[in-house]
Amino acid sequence: MGGEEKAKLLGVWSSPYSRRVELALKLKGVPFEYVEEDLSQKSALLLKCNPVHKKIPVLLHNGKSIVESLVILEYIDETWKGHSLLPQDPYERANARFWAKFIDDKLMPSVWKTFLSKEKERDKNKEEAYELLRTLESELKDKKYFGGDDIGYLDVVANVVAFWIQRVQSVVAIDLLNQVCFPILCKWIERLYHEIPVIKECLPPKDKHLVYIKARYEAATAANGNL
Amino acid sequence: MGGEEKAKLLGVWSSPYSRRVELALKLKGVPFEYVEEDLSQKSALLLKCNPVHKKIPVLLHNGKSIVESLVILEYIDETWKGHSLLPQDPYERANARFWAKFIDDKLMPSVWKTFLSKEKERDKNKEEAYELLRTLESELKDKKYFGGDDIGYLDVVANVVAFWIQRVQSVVAIDLLNQVCFPILCKWIERLYHEIPVIKECLPPKDKHLVYIKARYEAATAANGNL
Repeated sequence: MGGEEKAKLLGVWSSPYSRRVELALKLKGVPFEYVEEDLSQKSALLLKCNPVHKKIPVLLHNGKSIVESLVILEYIDETWKGHSLLPQDPYERANARFWAKFIDDKLMPSVWKTFLSKEKERDKNKEEAYELLRTLESELKDKKYFGGDDIGYLDVVANVVAFWIQRVQSVVAIDLLNQVCFPILCKWIERLYHEIPVIKECLPPKDKHLVYIKARYEAATAANGNL
Repeated sequence: MGGEEKAKLLGVWSSPYSRRVELALKLKGVPFEYVEEDLSQKSALLLKCNPVHKKIPVLLHNGKSIVESLVILEYIDETWKGHSLLPQDPYERANARFWAKFIDDKLMPSVWKTFLSKEKERDKNKEEAYELLRTLESELKDKKYFGGDDIGYLDVVANVVAFWIQRVQSVVAIDLLNQVCFPILCKWIERLYHEIPVIKECLPPKDKHLVYIKARYEAATAANGNL
């Protein structure tokens, strides 16, 4: 298929959810314009294109807007040829979709909850997050990537696990994802970083990101009464 | 494609989520065996087939298990020919997936919250649920079905809106979905019920269902301190 109008992505530099759309577009080799949104002052374009949730990411293409990062990934895969994101086999596709939902609806909320825990709840929350990371690791097993021999849809989704957790844990000093407990996930992260050149392009600049995470974390924990 | 092994659905008679899978299989004309689960004593088969969430619905097919109702619907559509559930166009597909997620993640939680509200929070919660129902109604507009001229994926998903809300509201005496406020949705529900014969087959028997809802509602509100 492929469209005539250049795609446009509304995102936020620090958001793993717009970064995953950026990664998918780059893996496909789709030219696109990136527009940085200021969430404290949402643009008229964002409000018009995502009136229901008023959130990023939004992909604009051929006069239409597509929202929700997992929905956008499927749209990208169905619209542009090139590197396939989802596998071809219906069962494998279902499996990838299942794990994507697991990451977004179960694993990441548990991880954020752990990072924002008050001290007395931290160990319990951390154990829950560990258990979910173990479950995800068991899916990777001896594969190079979640997608098999090459990066695919689920790797793009799981990029939030690969890089955001490591960055946040270095700021908040809660050790969640490490070599000893998760050797398979850590090897996969190394492989992503060293073998897939566009991964680096789709990561927020490290120093700026750590400053940002620290400020956000301090604001959240102060509001939460943790500090 | 089509598989050689007969499909098997693990479900619960009162669950809109296993009923939607049943509806999709029947619309496709897929022969399947239905196995009723007792959630108070989950079967070894359920625990084996959905070790992560331990929930229904589960579809078993060709030695594999597929879980999460929306994931199962996509699997059914990709595996068996016959009545197409999702549209062909990538944007229309994305749109259907967006609204399915809206119904499951936003609308239905708001509806259940309204039904289980304590009296002082009821009006506020009801207004929120109204707003979300209005948003869904605006998507239907002047179409016969969410899927266009015929029932499709989003109608199957939205079946929970069509029939569960009406049954629950008749028990809890909170008027949410009615002709005056939602004429378009109500017309769509009438059309589903009268024009799509399998819809009736996939609804829990009314009297038994109302008794069940009443018991569940009383237990939940007692635990919640509403009564």
